[in-house]
Amino acid sequence: MRIAVLGTGMVGRALASRLDELGHEVTIGTRDPDRTRGRADETGDFVRAHPDIGLADFKAAATSSEAVVNASSGLVSLDVLTLAGAPALAGKVLIDISNPLDFSKGFPPTLAVVDTDSLGEQIQRAFPEARVVKTLNTLNADLMVHPATLGAPSTVFVSGDDESAKSLVIDLLRSFGHADVVDLGGIETARGTEMYLPLWLRLMGSLGTATFNIHVVRP
Amino acid sequence: MRIAVLGTGMVGRALASRLDELGHEVTIGTRDPDRTRGRADETGDFVRAHPDIGLADFKAAATSSEAVVNASSGLVSLDVLTLAGAPALAGKVLIDISNPLDFSKGFPPTLAVVDTDSLGEQIQRAFPEARVVKTLNTLNADLMVHPATLGAPSTVFVSGDDESAKSLVIDLLRSFGHADVVDLGGIETARGTEMYLPLWLRLMGSLGTATFNIHVVRP
Repeated sequence: MRIAVLGTGMVGRALASRLDELGHEVTIGTRDPDRTRGRADETGDFVRAHPDIGLADFKAAATSSEAVVNASSGLVSLDVLTLAGAPALAGKVLIDISNPLDFSKGFPPTLAVVDTDSLGEQIQRAFPEARVVKTLNTLNADLMVHPATLGAPSTVFVSGDDESAKSLVIDLLRSFGHADVVDLGGIETARGTEMYLPLWLRLMGSLGTATFNIHVVRP
Repeated sequence: MRIAVLGTGMVGRALASRLDELGHEVTIGTRDPDRTRGRADETGDFVRAHPDIGLADFKAAATSSEAVVNASSGLVSLDVLTLAGAPALAGKVLIDISNPLDFSKGFPPTLAVVDTDSLGEQIQRAFPEARVVKTLNTLNADLMVHPATLGAPSTVFVSGDDESAKSLVIDLLRSFGHADVVDLGGIETARGTEMYLPLWLRLMGSLGTATFNIHVVRP
């Protein structure tokens, strides 16, 4: 499948790399491809080391793809998707793995949207023709794409209003190695997974590692 | 140990029953003991069926006990603890298992306090001499006291500023059968477990049961 990954951070790179490895045709979307290509940091290194992965601006990346991954920071996600543009997203599966984390008041971050709304819903409302599926926002970048690292089953979640979009995303998740995928329901249920982040952050503090995930144990 | 359980709902009854079974001297705290004794419902039935478990008003129950469990509804917890009174709570371990769930706008409930504060912290601030430990607010009443029902390990959490109070609570949790207890840190970390509730509620909806819990899987 032709997939655009919007965002060049740790999450975007992990997704792009894994999707490429699994045989998808991946284009990373970024604000300014030339600038990204010249960066003297991990992002620049990654782009130069993966000539097989495309690099384009947000709009071109989304336009040329069948599915789009929002791997941008939560606070800029609506801006990034606006740059991609509603026409480029219309009818497409939009996999939202962002969290509305606000670090402006220090650590741990608070949530920029909480309890009576979610970033997943904001994105769905802003782009009503996109088929938004919220997923993978409950674990760290490495585990998103290599869950087997944990050596025991753990759970990921999907939230979305479009059943066929969720079905496609569940297949993708299984191809990453996620054996336990719980469909929480409509996009409203993104409130649940986004509000799990404060617990995730404190678990990371207590365990001293981000290499953990939850498994939903039921009889 | 002499333990007061404040609250006669499903959670209070489960805790009182299990603590009694484990040999503790339990007193249930309620607003009006005579009224509770005469109730023609599950609470009345429970009280009449357990003559070995004491029943007293909030203040008398807390005063006569070495540790106090807040098993009241989150929205009335501060009122209930005020009726118990600061002197009756001073120096004691106060096990807070409530959640600030607000059902006034329908289901799923929202949280009356969220993100930048928590009910656990509000209780600790209101009763600075109590040694508050937040725990067990992440699973249903039966699993709180009989986690083995799940047939596989799952995790519970403790949050609190007093290390010796947490240590006592961890021993209690182990006596219930909780093999995996994660100490998240100070009472501030109660924000994490309280904000997990929106995910818990949506999991309950999706799984069609409240008999589930999360296990924190780490390598």
